[in-house]
Amino acid sequence: MISEKMKPLVNNNSAIRAMFEEGKRLAAIYGAENVYDFSLGNPNVPAPEAVNEAICRIVNEEPSVMVHGYMSNAGFEDVREAIAQSLNRRFGTKFHQGNILMTVGAASGLNVILKTILNLQDQVVTFAPYFVEYGNYVRNYDGILEVVPADTETFQPDLEEFSRRITDRTKAVIINTPNNPTGVIYSEAVLTRLGEILTEKEKKFGTQIVLISDEPYRELAYDGAEVPYVTKFYHNTVICYSYSKSLSLPGERIGYLVIPDELTDSKEVFNAAVIANRVMGAVNAPSLMQRVVMRCVDETADIEAYDRNRNLLYRGLREAGFECVKPQGAFYMFVKSPEPDEKKFCEACKKEHILVVPGSSFACPGYVRISYCVSFDQIRRSLPAFKRVAEGYGLKGLED
Amino acid sequence: MISEKMKPLVNNNSAIRAMFEEGKRLAAIYGAENVYDFSLGNPNVPAPEAVNEAICRIVNEEPSVMVHGYMSNAGFEDVREAIAQSLNRRFGTKFHQGNILMTVGAASGLNVILKTILNLQDQVVTFAPYFVEYGNYVRNYDGILEVVPADTETFQPDLEEFSRRITDRTKAVIINTPNNPTGVIYSEAVLTRLGEILTEKEKKFGTQIVLISDEPYRELAYDGAEVPYVTKFYHNTVICYSYSKSLSLPGERIGYLVIPDELTDSKEVFNAAVIANRVMGAVNAPSLMQRVVMRCVDETADIEAYDRNRNLLYRGLREAGFECVKPQGAFYMFVKSPEPDEKKFCEACKKEHILVVPGSSFACPGYVRISYCVSFDQIRRSLPAFKRVAEGYGLKGLED
Repeated sequence: MISEKMKPLVNNNSAIRAMFEEGKRLAAIYGAENVYDFSLGNPNVPAPEAVNEAICRIVNEEPSVMVHGYMSNAGFEDVREAIAQSLNRRFGTKFHQGNILMTVGAASGLNVILKTILNLQDQVVTFAPYFVEYGNYVRNYDGILEVVPADTETFQPDLEEFSRRITDRTKAVIINTPNNPTGVIYSEAVLTRLGEILTEKEKKFGTQIVLISDEPYRELAYDGAEVPYVTKFYHNTVICYSYSKSLSLPGERIGYLVIPDELTDSKEVFNAAVIANRVMGAVNAPSLMQRVVMRCVDETADIEAYDRNRNLLYRGLREAGFECVKPQGAFYMFVKSPEPDEKKFCEACKKEHILVVPGSSFACPGYVRISYCVSFDQIRRSLPAFKRVAEGYGLKGLED
Repeated sequence: MISEKMKPLVNNNSAIRAMFEEGKRLAAIYGAENVYDFSLGNPNVPAPEAVNEAICRIVNEEPSVMVHGYMSNAGFEDVREAIAQSLNRRFGTKFHQGNILMTVGAASGLNVILKTILNLQDQVVTFAPYFVEYGNYVRNYDGILEVVPADTETFQPDLEEFSRRITDRTKAVIINTPNNPTGVIYSEAVLTRLGEILTEKEKKFGTQIVLISDEPYRELAYDGAEVPYVTKFYHNTVICYSYSKSLSLPGERIGYLVIPDELTDSKEVFNAAVIANRVMGAVNAPSLMQRVVMRCVDETADIEAYDRNRNLLYRGLREAGFECVKPQGAFYMFVKSPEPDEKKFCEACKKEHILVVPGSSFACPGYVRISYCVSFDQIRRSLPAFKRVAEGYGLKGLED
């Protein structure tokens, strides 16, 4: 019954499912409090109080047929304008509602823009390690994902290699900063050079290349780190944003695309993206949540909680002897496996009831991803277990 | 910038947009109260009080990280079980949560099941008149929509012709009952015969053919008309449901697929559909709305309001002299154009500030669709205008 295109996805999926099942199995045997599940990116910090307040006020104050009704497929105009103004205040941009397309989260936004621009066999470039779904999103529209290998020193993008990979069939580039799974933030210098390369390549090949910036972690940045706004560095940039992490609303599926005026054929692309959003079945982003984010446009969940987790876990892992680039943002650490095959390392962790994701799931073997969007207490309780794993490999504590 | 596949959609779209713009233009000149817009299927009846009550109770009573968080991509287990039990109570079915996949409305549900099963050039059969987006949904997965012409006497499906159109490349059939745009409900006899034909064809060709029943109007049935539950008539049936109309939540994008145990490879199809839901970017249906429909699983919006509209409009149109099959369900009437080219009839209506949709948008020229999900007062005020249009064609009043 299953289509040929879906079959590999079904087969692939079972590995990830197996991990979930393993977590459940361990919890059933040893008790949930004795299993340290760091495998998921599901925020454990609740939405800010303002979100639930806004929800109740909206359903009491605004008319039902509007709050729950159809609107323009691009989203409510007032919501889109409020988002544009918030971005302008915070990042010095000059957006207006005509640049903002409300989407069913960033994942849907990525699909919308890829459907809008990709032709058969078009190439989409991204940088390892990357969120594994990018490959599925690109294949949804018969594109080909081209992966630039990781620079495992810094986990900043390898721009020399990137430049070599771009061809006349390159239609898009996907970046993700702050990054899942490394927590690295792309610096202004990196984005400047990235923009220069793309401008050169567009000129050289006489093509248009869209830089798609997947930014669900934008507000999760620590130690005062800045997350530069990507549209400033290159004209053909599209932003995919989600409130999943900033407002802890991952289940609500609410986000937006920014399609700036500077983009080639901007209005035409915007209109086509609205149609793509419709015909793929989303039709529009969930209406009540659109009105909620308008009222909470400058709010965030308690990001300091993630920062406390980050510091505790990073210190603990270093003291145990694990190597890792200290994350500047998001809520992941990408830790070097003490043995070449990180899947074996994952197995060793599992013996201590620690669940982490192998880096090969992000096209970067030899590393594992640890999600620290969990309770502070889970991290605290897990550290002796990490220590025992480290001792099993004969690791010695590292300086902070 | 736009992909080749999107270009025809962009060009097509401008006709529909033009109608919206025309409505706005007329309203600006003559005042909104003097423009009779019957073009949209956007419910004007508010959601039942229970919906807003449930929303506030949920955000006050249930933990935020659960209400707004990720769950299984198929949806919350308790929500799916509540829906299964509600269906079982109302229709004597035997569903369980493993048959229910929460989706971003029925449009997304249709996309999910089509992506799950369609291979390149697979044929999907539907009956004119049909919702124009079906063609786009099928083309999203490189399928071919095969349209059985309308039986304009009854607007029940022409099953003789249907039987002839099915080939060894037929992978799916889409039906929509109660029907948009005709308001017709498929009878038990029709569904029985439809099921028999599909069973015969599966046997003859050695294939699997999925009957997809698009049912956003299931609860909108009048004069005690029954809407038979389609899974009873054929083993390979998938239901696409939406709460858009039954709870007046079209903007919230909440619905579900039913994938029964009787479906061939049922579990495999279910798992693949969950993955399709994820990789197309929806990830899961909006979480708060999932919890809302669980608490409102047996509620409906004020369907009598639509019934009052139906009776007033039907009587008014008949008295003016227009021909129309009296709708049994949904909130549309499909009225015969008094001249062969119904687009000219639409123009004549527009001169009286009446906006209706040409039947050619539903692959059924010679008719127009009138949406009566508008205020009772709009219908009342519009009747003299309809009367003047009828007089322009020399029509005489018909008996009820």
